Amino acid sequence: MDKDRLDRQFAFIREIDKEKAITRQNYRSDGICKENDAEHAWHIAIMTLLLSEYANERIDVLRTVGMLLIHDLVEIDAGDTYAYDEDGIKTQHEREKKAAERIFGLLPDDQRQQLQALWEEFEAGNTPEARFARTMDHIQPMMLNAATDGKSWVEHGICLDQILAHNSNTADGSQALWAYAYENFIVPNLAKGRIWESSKEK
Amino acid sequence: MDKDRLDRQFAFIREIDKEKAITRQNYRSDGICKENDAEHAWHIAIMTLLLSEYANERIDVLRTVGMLLIHDLVEIDAGDTYAYDEDGIKTQHEREKKAAERIFGLLPDDQRQQLQALWEEFEAGNTPEARFARTMDHIQPMMLNAATDGKSWVEHGICLDQILAHNSNTADGSQALWAYAYENFIVPNLAKGRIWESSKEK
Repeated sequence: MDKDRLDRQFAFIREIDKEKAITRQNYRSDGICKENDAEHAWHIAIMTLLLSEYANERIDVLRTVGMLLIHDLVEIDAGDTYAYDEDGIKTQHEREKKAAERIFGLLPDDQRQQLQALWEEFEAGNTPEARFARTMDHIQPMMLNAATDGKSWVEHGICLDQILAHNSNTADGSQALWAYAYENFIVPNLAKGRIWESSKEK
Repeated sequence: MDKDRLDRQFAFIREIDKEKAITRQNYRSDGICKENDAEHAWHIAIMTLLLSEYANERIDVLRTVGMLLIHDLVEIDAGDTYAYDEDGIKTQHEREKKAAERIFGLLPDDQRQQLQALWEEFEAGNTPEARFARTMDHIQPMMLNAATDGKSWVEHGICLDQILAHNSNTADGSQALWAYAYENFIVPNLAKGRIWESSKEK
């Protein structure tokens, strides 16, 4: 047994436990508790297992699931940046890059490199797996918002143009899933006034 | 787009959100909040990606990760049964079997069968993947207990013989990981009196 290697692996495994305390802006389907990053990652990993048949391009499911399981670990240091927080988004990449170095740096070198590369691939969004992973990452909170009568959209006064801008690449992973999400999660909430038609209305 | 198929898939995806509200007996590493099933499943899925090199037998990592992501969904109906709750364990299988039928039954037939079979495989523990999955499932709370000065062992007055009985198959998935866990998570807490030496001592 290589004790040093196992010690490093378990130091990382213990450290990432902190992701369970990183709260997101959207609610669980009960509309009471806000979701955390670990719960979100678990949910979209299962979604990938069930929905990969709708990917625009053939994807390696294990790579995609791995990417999604680890994609938010950087938020242990950098915090959750809300999709519609314009100031936060400006500094997000720099904060997250530094976090990735520290957190993945706990691992043995080979696994540090693997996870760092997987995270960078997700961030860049230039492979079939990263495109599909980002589709999952965007559609899941949309589904939870729809399940809670648009609660977090209403709380933040979100407009359709903000949602469309944030989802400009969501169809790149799966046109079918974006079409379904748009019809079933966005349109009904727009009709009910839970999403603003446009920023000018406000 | 097959709307009926997608509706069924999303009905399941929405339903499993409830797993985030199923609280376990062990604490997160902060020693304050108890962990929930979704967080636990996320954690052991990442552990599988990092630790599969220690499996006694060659395993299909995607199958194992999938198995772990879904292994506790039945607890949405059946509740969490604490590993050392002797009465609860007697009715556990019957309660969970019924839950599996309802919850996996939300899916389209092909995926219902796949997930039901994966869950049954985990429960039976007779394949390399199921053996390794159960090793992950047992070692993770042990690590969190050790990280919190044995908090949930102390609260429940757990004895070494209970831990050893509960872990009678943990080495079947990975001898190396069981040896590491025993040395690093159990032995130090036994020495410090956070785990009772034997039931007779109580």
